[in-house]
Amino acid sequence: MAEKARLVENAAGRLVPEVVNGREQTPYLGVGKFRPEGRKASPRIVTCADYPEDGDKQVPTLRDAFEKVGLADGMVVSTHHHLRNGDAVANMAFDAAAGLGVKDLMWFPSASFPVHANQLRHLESGVIHHIEGSMNGPLGDYCSQGKMRGLGVLRSHGGRWQAIQDGEVHIDVAVIAAPTADPFGNAHGLDGPAACGLLGFALADSIFAEKVIVVTDNLVPFPCIPWQIQGNNVDVVVEVDSIGDPSKIVSGTTRITRSPDRLRIAELAARFCEAAGIVRDGFSFQAGAGGTSLAFAIYLRDIMRSAGVTARFARGGSNRYLVEMLRDGLVEYILDGQTFDLDGVRSMREDPRHVNTSPFTSYNYHGKGNFASMVDVVVLGATEVDVEFNANVVTHSDGRLLHGIGGWQNCLAARTTMLLVPSFRDRIPVIVDRVTTLCGPGELIDVVVTERGIAVNPRRQDLLDAVRGSDLPVRDIHDLKAELDRLCGVPSRPERSDEPVAVVKWVDGTVLDTVWRVG
Amino acid sequence: MAEKARLVENAAGRLVPEVVNGREQTPYLGVGKFRPEGRKASPRIVTCADYPEDGDKQVPTLRDAFEKVGLADGMVVSTHHHLRNGDAVANMAFDAAAGLGVKDLMWFPSASFPVHANQLRHLESGVIHHIEGSMNGPLGDYCSQGKMRGLGVLRSHGGRWQAIQDGEVHIDVAVIAAPTADPFGNAHGLDGPAACGLLGFALADSIFAEKVIVVTDNLVPFPCIPWQIQGNNVDVVVEVDSIGDPSKIVSGTTRITRSPDRLRIAELAARFCEAAGIVRDGFSFQAGAGGTSLAFAIYLRDIMRSAGVTARFARGGSNRYLVEMLRDGLVEYILDGQTFDLDGVRSMREDPRHVNTSPFTSYNYHGKGNFASMVDVVVLGATEVDVEFNANVVTHSDGRLLHGIGGWQNCLAARTTMLLVPSFRDRIPVIVDRVTTLCGPGELIDVVVTERGIAVNPRRQDLLDAVRGSDLPVRDIHDLKAELDRLCGVPSRPERSDEPVAVVKWVDGTVLDTVWRVG
Repeated sequence: MAEKARLVENAAGRLVPEVVNGREQTPYLGVGKFRPEGRKASPRIVTCADYPEDGDKQVPTLRDAFEKVGLADGMVVSTHHHLRNGDAVANMAFDAAAGLGVKDLMWFPSASFPVHANQLRHLESGVIHHIEGSMNGPLGDYCSQGKMRGLGVLRSHGGRWQAIQDGEVHIDVAVIAAPTADPFGNAHGLDGPAACGLLGFALADSIFAEKVIVVTDNLVPFPCIPWQIQGNNVDVVVEVDSIGDPSKIVSGTTRITRSPDRLRIAELAARFCEAAGIVRDGFSFQAGAGGTSLAFAIYLRDIMRSAGVTARFARGGSNRYLVEMLRDGLVEYILDGQTFDLDGVRSMREDPRHVNTSPFTSYNYHGKGNFASMVDVVVLGATEVDVEFNANVVTHSDGRLLHGIGGWQNCLAARTTMLLVPSFRDRIPVIVDRVTTLCGPGELIDVVVTERGIAVNPRRQDLLDAVRGSDLPVRDIHDLKAELDRLCGVPSRPERSDEPVAVVKWVDGTVLDTVWRVG
Repeated sequence: MAEKARLVENAAGRLVPEVVNGREQTPYLGVGKFRPEGRKASPRIVTCADYPEDGDKQVPTLRDAFEKVGLADGMVVSTHHHLRNGDAVANMAFDAAAGLGVKDLMWFPSASFPVHANQLRHLESGVIHHIEGSMNGPLGDYCSQGKMRGLGVLRSHGGRWQAIQDGEVHIDVAVIAAPTADPFGNAHGLDGPAACGLLGFALADSIFAEKVIVVTDNLVPFPCIPWQIQGNNVDVVVEVDSIGDPSKIVSGTTRITRSPDRLRIAELAARFCEAAGIVRDGFSFQAGAGGTSLAFAIYLRDIMRSAGVTARFARGGSNRYLVEMLRDGLVEYILDGQTFDLDGVRSMREDPRHVNTSPFTSYNYHGKGNFASMVDVVVLGATEVDVEFNANVVTHSDGRLLHGIGGWQNCLAARTTMLLVPSFRDRIPVIVDRVTTLCGPGELIDVVVTERGIAVNPRRQDLLDAVRGSDLPVRDIHDLKAELDRLCGVPSRPERSDEPVAVVKWVDGTVLDTVWRVG
């Protein structure tokens, strides 16, 4: 079903389509090589004469809201994913669009989750033409099978901001789920039954979209403070019974891995940071919310505590462990992109040192700098890494598209980037000759930590020198790979089809790789 | 010296130039009549590849900063006025520009003060071509005398945002004085020797200018929290010894008028609000920082206290009286555009209910609504009012340009707008047949309060009905005028020249009136 486009080899040696969803593309040129041109996108100039003087922008239903903003065939409708797998609003929105008989929408979520399998029927019936955004689970599977009419476009959080800002994606209607909002459209995520902390993933949508609809289940009188989303950018406000299932938005507890292998990986990574001299007063770090990352943060905390070292800032996703470090004075500031548990939400609400950020501040590559490159060390995961340190984070080795990029690509800009990966998944080695899908260029990935050893990118002789003499199991990545291959054998690769189903964008909007139809 | 342009009569019956500083204008069409077209302006797309990865954007001097951003002849350089008459940065900037031999700059301050008389020599020498922005004092006088090479353009705070946003004024280089900043360019006004509270007047500059320079005398390590100005919009950071004289930025005390006449005006205004039913639970108000406005706020406070009424929000400028009302629970939120004393600064720093705003949230008429129209009552001053309730706020009756518009025009959008004016100034009646310069259309001005009586705009029959039966001295504005004329005689009007020296913009960017050369 996907369009047939001429393929061209990019600077990473990957075949990518020249045209994606009717739009000409620039193939990836190398890190920092693409020079953007032109001016940032911007919505039409509006006038207060067209908005209620009393500031009350409410209409009764999402259907009314869509009618008011003039939803029409072929438009781009965006949503955000701070409500994660508890989100009810994206489903409501496309059900309402279907009810209006609208067709061929492009859905532009900041990410989609299994709960959004509801949209499969709208893809089938023609309400949605295709999705550009991370597709986790069933939608990724649908895309993988080549069933979507357009190509999937996978972007990092920063790449999504860049695409909106640069006018690559023009949002016609943004639908913003808001845990708290006022009738003017000011909104935040700090309170309400579906509190999710912040709304940073919807910020670009609110600024650049032509029309903005805020949907809330916790309407407060003007002014809703703080205005993470500014009512001055909002056209319509809709009150609904519930915007989502709180139990699936944030969890009360955060789970650390219990796997001995993964605990070892986390410990090795933390000890590497110490040995390399990264853990020093005023340093900064970012660790995700996965079980291994959490364990890393705890090992790091213990090292900091015994060394008497304070971090100037930590980048979130936040969780109770990070919040404790803030409270205990081990971290001076949390610069947070999303809250992963209720402790994170509470801390952001109550502690001014726990600061909400957006993909603009943190990740946008087409800005005057961003926070990601100022982080001393970031630990990330990957589905595959190759011997050139190139990494994959969206497909499995069988080629199926199952994960989004998130902030992963953007974080590679950190001073030291570490991938924490198990040697094997389902008895398939994670270190490979060539990654199925290239998401991160090897020149930006410094260290790969497995339970069987630590591989340091030869470009980082400084790190190799720093840890020489330590008892850390530092090994050549080729040796590590050879050992894994000996243990499991090199699995035979599934033959890839020649039909693109999605592309992976680099942080600058160029096309880094193609995801091919499976089966 | 000012350009000769064809004059045309606008919808308010005022003669205005068709072209201002080389740019075609739309004459004022009436309140809410002008329909904007096109898209918002936006700066060029940039890339992180051109900015330091470690986030350190410092250069040693303003001269270096100008060289780095490529300051050139004819460019537009903007500054903000939160440091008021204590500002040192605008002077430093034009001295540095002069040192580089740059000519014909357009200076685009959010307002200028007597301290900026330093720029007279740069106007004389050709470094500055002309000024678009409020000119208080010596610069206004210079402009009034027709000495400036271009026309002055007077805009309200909201009109300045609108002009930038709509692309009417393209800022090449914004110079932002920052009481606290980090090397990345994040900045706020809450701390430091020159703390001024907030930096809202510089926000549009930071977003829309091609190049942004932050100048600070209080450099802190990244991250500077909160980032009222976002480093992601900043090109260069300069540390200097001092950005201004704290004693002239904010005063430790705020002075209430002692004039019996003005106290009576303030009291009448507050009693009018009570009688008209405006002072009710959940209402909102805005009062400026002048002595009469302050007295009004105190009378209002006493009325609220005895009636047991709480305001949902008050709009600042903030001062210690407003802060006390917040602390005492008489006001739930302060939505503040500028802090006028140290109590205001402290409260904004420490109390999350004291919220910093910007001309975007509060005043921009080309937005999806703004705060100004949601305010129940605003009290303002004026230099003249006519019998149609039209008002002047920029010139004196002798035609001299001496004041800026500030937020005055924007505030007229409030549900009830009251002008608190003495009957006479220097024995010249304030109520006139026709205002010297039209700044506010009479249809938006509801009540004029003088010490000799209260005139209610006949369009507001609801207010007349509400106060009927009270003991308030409500009078027809013609009667009031007749009384003043009897007492003083109608002064002879100075003949106006036929040479425009400045124009007054309406909130939608159309030209409302012309200021003519004096003497």
